[in-house]
Amino acid sequence: MKIRVGFGFDVHALVSERELWLGGIKLEHEKGLLGHSDADVLLHAVCDALLGAANMRDIGFHFPDNAGEYKNIDSKILLARTMELIRSKGYELGNIDATVCAERPKLNPHIPAMKKAMAAVMNVDEDDISIKATTTEKLGFTGREEGISAYATVLITKE
Amino acid sequence: MKIRVGFGFDVHALVSERELWLGGIKLEHEKGLLGHSDADVLLHAVCDALLGAANMRDIGFHFPDNAGEYKNIDSKILLARTMELIRSKGYELGNIDATVCAERPKLNPHIPAMKKAMAAVMNVDEDDISIKATTTEKLGFTGREEGISAYATVLITKE
Amino acid sequence: MKIRVGFGFDVHALVSERELWLGGIKLEHEKGLLGHSDADVLLHAVCDALLGAANMRDIGFHFPDNAGEYKNIDSKILLARTMELIRSKGYELGNIDATVCAERPKLNPHIPAMKKAMAAVMNVDEDDISIKATTTEKLGFTGREEGISAYATVLITKE
Ligand SMILES: [Zn+2]
Ligand SMILES: [Zn+2]
Ligand SMILES: [Zn+2]
Repeated sequence: MKIRVGFGFDVHALVSERELWLGGIKLEHEKGLLGHSDADVLLHAVCDALLGAANMRDIGFHFPDNAGEYKNIDSKILLARTMELIRSKGYELGNIDATVCAERPKLNPHIPAMKKAMAAVMNVDEDDISIKATTTEKLGFTGREEGISAYATVLITKE
Repeated sequence: MKIRVGFGFDVHALVSERELWLGGIKLEHEKGLLGHSDADVLLHAVCDALLGAANMRDIGFHFPDNAGEYKNIDSKILLARTMELIRSKGYELGNIDATVCAERPKLNPHIPAMKKAMAAVMNVDEDDISIKATTTEKLGFTGREEGISAYATVLITKE
Repeated sequence: MKIRVGFGFDVHALVSERELWLGGIKLEHEKGLLGHSDADVLLHAVCDALLGAANMRDIGFHFPDNAGEYKNIDSKILLARTMELIRSKGYELGNIDATVCAERPKLNPHIPAMKKAMAAVMNVDEDDISIKATTTEKLGFTGREEGISAYATVLITKE
């Protein structure tokens, strides 16, 4: 069995009058993430980690942010396409471990719903998806609530 | 053999009149890290990476920072409990590679002592724990010495 | 087969009157990265990930930035030596997945050349090196173009 590691990092700015989508679900918050798509920073970090593990470039390469077809798109569609891409090369998910850095809102209560949404889209076992949340203790741009960042690491395997 | 990857990231603010604990040991410095526990940012990142790899939520879930029992606690106790948690699911450590971002103090001379302290608490081989130190070249909140951050990546295995 | 994971993170400041070296190649840009060596932040993150995976300390330990012999050195030489170091312990590269955070210049067109340069120096298959590029959406020190950061994760194996 071949095994490969991948890592993704993504950032989006928090602004008024946008919905906040994270981990494939919509959260109640007075601000949302700015981007060409729905700006789901967690799903984007996961897509990048999967594509990187498979050596298939990155999310900007496959889903360019100047393409009309991706305007305001639900990032779950991008995640589903990413899974198709890596499966087309014979890879399957081992596991994902992701971390979201956000001062607010509190994410812990929503993590089970995020995992469920992601597992359904990816067609994998929920036990193979871990999501963690942390603040940066009011430091840096996430601490000042100017944006949210996400890290994801993955293993993928090929028989 | 099953193999899983995990990743942890943690940040704490540097303030006066706190002790500086890193990697399970106390360092001489004019500031220390602020937190509910001893704020050992390196041990926290390692705990999160281990819990994430095992899909067992995160450090805030198991050791809430509003619980009196964790007030000023030595984070080595949290690390020992984290190892108990992942071993209760049948996992054992593969290896850890961690990185601490701090402008000061110089950490390199203390890395062997940190590895020794962590290996004893975790009951693993020192050769399976790597700790690296870097500055961020005076950039960002770590560069301005407002805080210290730590990254940890781990592999865990199950027979 | 033994398998180990490693992770590297590096930052350098962007300044005038320096060349910009990234991934082993020179890019056209009005600024370059400041450092004792050529300051190739991507190669440094990769070196640190490889050394960390093999538990062989870090780039600052092997190639100190106060040593005259490393002044303005091409970081490809450091990467070649790092591969010698890990091979001396019996390790071989599994795969690398790296991410560069830079607001400008656009890196995507240069990624194939970076992979080619790195694979040649490391004497590995290009398919085992993934490089991704992202901005931080004008946030933080990379967003303000004060510096460039790079993350790298690796797997290494020993028969
Ligand atoms: Zn994004
Ligand atoms: Zn902490
Ligand atoms: Zn460097």
